Amino acid sequence: MDTALLIDDVRLTPILIADPPLLNTQGVHQPYTPRLVVEVVTRGGVTGVGETYGDGAYLEPAESLARALVGRPVSDVNGLFTLADQVCGDSRTADEGVDAGGLRGVRNAGKLRLSVVSGFEVACLDALGKTLGLPVHALLGGKVRDRVEYSAYLFYRWAAHPGGSGEKDDWGAALDPAGIVAQARRFAREHGFGSFKLKGGVFPPDEEIAAVCALAEAFPGQALRLDPNGAWSVATSLHVAGRLKDVLEYLEDPASGIPAMAEVSAGTDLPLATNMCVTTLAELPEALARDAVQVVLSDHHYWGGLHRTRELAAICRTFGVGLSMHSNTHLGISLAAMNHVAATVPGLGHACDTHYPWQSEDVLTTRHTFQDGFLTVSDAPGLGVELDRDRLADLHRRWLDDDGTMRARDDAAAMRKADPDWVAPAVPRW
Amino acid sequence: MDTALLIDDVRLTPILIADPPLLNTQGVHQPYTPRLVVEVVTRGGVTGVGETYGDGAYLEPAESLARALVGRPVSDVNGLFTLADQVCGDSRTADEGVDAGGLRGVRNAGKLRLSVVSGFEVACLDALGKTLGLPVHALLGGKVRDRVEYSAYLFYRWAAHPGGSGEKDDWGAALDPAGIVAQARRFAREHGFGSFKLKGGVFPPDEEIAAVCALAEAFPGQALRLDPNGAWSVATSLHVAGRLKDVLEYLEDPASGIPAMAEVSAGTDLPLATNMCVTTLAELPEALARDAVQVVLSDHHYWGGLHRTRELAAICRTFGVGLSMHSNTHLGISLAAMNHVAATVPGLGHACDTHYPWQSEDVLTTRHTFQDGFLTVSDAPGLGVELDRDRLADLHRRWLDDDGTMRARDDAAAMRKADPDWVAPAVPRW
Repeated sequence: MDTALLIDDVRLTPILIADPPLLNTQGVHQPYTPRLVVEVVTRGGVTGVGETYGDGAYLEPAESLARALVGRPVSDVNGLFTLADQVCGDSRTADEGVDAGGLRGVRNAGKLRLSVVSGFEVACLDALGKTLGLPVHALLGGKVRDRVEYSAYLFYRWAAHPGGSGEKDDWGAALDPAGIVAQARRFAREHGFGSFKLKGGVFPPDEEIAAVCALAEAFPGQALRLDPNGAWSVATSLHVAGRLKDVLEYLEDPASGIPAMAEVSAGTDLPLATNMCVTTLAELPEALARDAVQVVLSDHHYWGGLHRTRELAAICRTFGVGLSMHSNTHLGISLAAMNHVAATVPGLGHACDTHYPWQSEDVLTTRHTFQDGFLTVSDAPGLGVELDRDRLADLHRRWLDDDGTMRARDDAAAMRKADPDWVAPAVPRW
Repeated sequence: MDTALLIDDVRLTPILIADPPLLNTQGVHQPYTPRLVVEVVTRGGVTGVGETYGDGAYLEPAESLARALVGRPVSDVNGLFTLADQVCGDSRTADEGVDAGGLRGVRNAGKLRLSVVSGFEVACLDALGKTLGLPVHALLGGKVRDRVEYSAYLFYRWAAHPGGSGEKDDWGAALDPAGIVAQARRFAREHGFGSFKLKGGVFPPDEEIAAVCALAEAFPGQALRLDPNGAWSVATSLHVAGRLKDVLEYLEDPASGIPAMAEVSAGTDLPLATNMCVTTLAELPEALARDAVQVVLSDHHYWGGLHRTRELAAICRTFGVGLSMHSNTHLGISLAAMNHVAATVPGLGHACDTHYPWQSEDVLTTRHTFQDGFLTVSDAPGLGVELDRDRLADLHRRWLDDDGTMRARDDAAAMRKADPDWVAPAVPRW
């Protein structure tokens, strides 16, 4: 093995990035949200970049993994999982709960580690690709498409954060069907998106049904999705599915957990999608056996990187389950990684989600641009992105200067700035 | 993309290799058996090698695929499947039967194409690895072990082919328990194998039970397997399982087809393995849903290459199914490919099968050697093997000189040289 491929240094840079006041069933996005930028530097002097969650719970295992990586080949990404299990271990086993709720479903130590690994795997693949002169998709066996389709991600939102904190934007409020349609029109105009996902679980279901119906009228024949993040009971889910069965491409996580999803699935022909009740390989067999979901949303941050995402895709193909792609607040490094892996996966039958248009800040010298709702697959070495170090330093400074309130995403706490009595609702909320 | 990685030429060389008179339920191995050596040459002047089945049914689609590959990037292995479907198509769909029987289970046009693709995928990965200076395992995400364990592959056999044709060897006949134990002792002595698989389905089951019991006595505590290639009824399979449950690691394909295997599985705690009722991803869901098998034998020639083998492995891990590796008559190119992919797969809990020690001829300048039953994983660029062009030319000359009788493997026809009335037995044979 060429010693130029050995990892010489790993740099971790936690940052805070601006996030608009987007509403969901737990609360509202904070003015700033943490991300972690991972840089892997080889002895050959090549730097690869990755990106993952930046909350404190991820930083500690990331630091352990960073130390352990030095001296290992950058090509050795299969070995990251065992290494992470060895060095990121605390007293908890991978299955033990860290957080039983939230938008991600049950969060446990094992899932945290997979998210940490994903940032390192992407950085390693970027460094490897740059060293070899190959795009990341070629390191995954090659692209099967030249561009990847994305979906507009519509949110109920306020015009500004409580008290006017955070960065400003010109989107205005969207709190009713007309506001959602206006938001969708702007997304279609600016990025060419041809499908639309509404983040629901914010208002009583009939109001969200009305918003989707308004979208269906405004964009006849275009793919629509609704995702209340598991906020509904089985009965409510079936009520919504019945009302929207002719206009939705799929209904995403109407209810919480595989048993409830399976009940909903049994009662409707509308395909159900998930990025909550199935977020690891271990959760797949039960979901498939119970026919709880017909579409799984991949997310390389959840599943442990790009290779694991391809494995998930293979399982979905094998079992006749559809594949789409989930997005959480992310920057351009992760969007590039999503685009590379999506390009290599046969049978990606649905446009991918992306929060990217909501992110006014990035750490790249050049922002990604969607054309007709698609992102071209880069053939440049590695991910094909370049880190803007000044911008990275600015955003890290913001993280350093923060008093700690923004360093862990907490949508319920952010909501309490507007409504001091707010607690994240128990599910089912409706 | 670097134009040095574009494919400039593809050479296909059908050869005939010596094969000993090994017995199975269909008949006996022919004195010579066909293989196809695939060479992919890049514009950068690098040649990668692959190996697959060489029967006539594989040569025609291989020639079509070879022509279509010129000008494409050698890194583009994900695209081989769609390309093969496009250019290797005959009037049959992938699912249509070509051959309803044989040792491979149902053979159809789609399975043939996967086997053809596997040889090209390996050759592309070898060329890519040589170009980049990386071992094939690194192109698959890196090895998770430094050596791979193999199992001795024991056969009932004659001392020589009927009429004394073919190449000679000094193994002698093995037609009873003592002969099988003697064969196993030699394998253990020469290669260090610590586990043993007996190809059964040749003699009435009680004789094969006696052979396995003799092995258990000779090698106490070592892993043993028995594989009658689906020759038994459910009742016979359960009889054998009952007799051998305390000495076998697993029982391989006792009965034919998923329904029969599921019946056997329901009646015994002995794990069942298969390389017959599940040989493609499409066959997995039913087998898993019915708990028909507890171990799947991967084979990159069957499943469509090394990436697909890794996908199979991921599915097995996800669903709690064991993974082992099947072997058919193969040369050192394929053994190298098997070793690379096996090295990258977590949870490979069983020693891999290999026919290699039975193959006295190879197309490599240096034969692989097993140490203590293991093969070291090569870190040399590509597969880490070198083609012996003189030897390849000799073996191709043998293929050219053949009157056609050896160009398609037919174990029943070979058996008729000794027993003119022989027809491949219908299953269940016992």
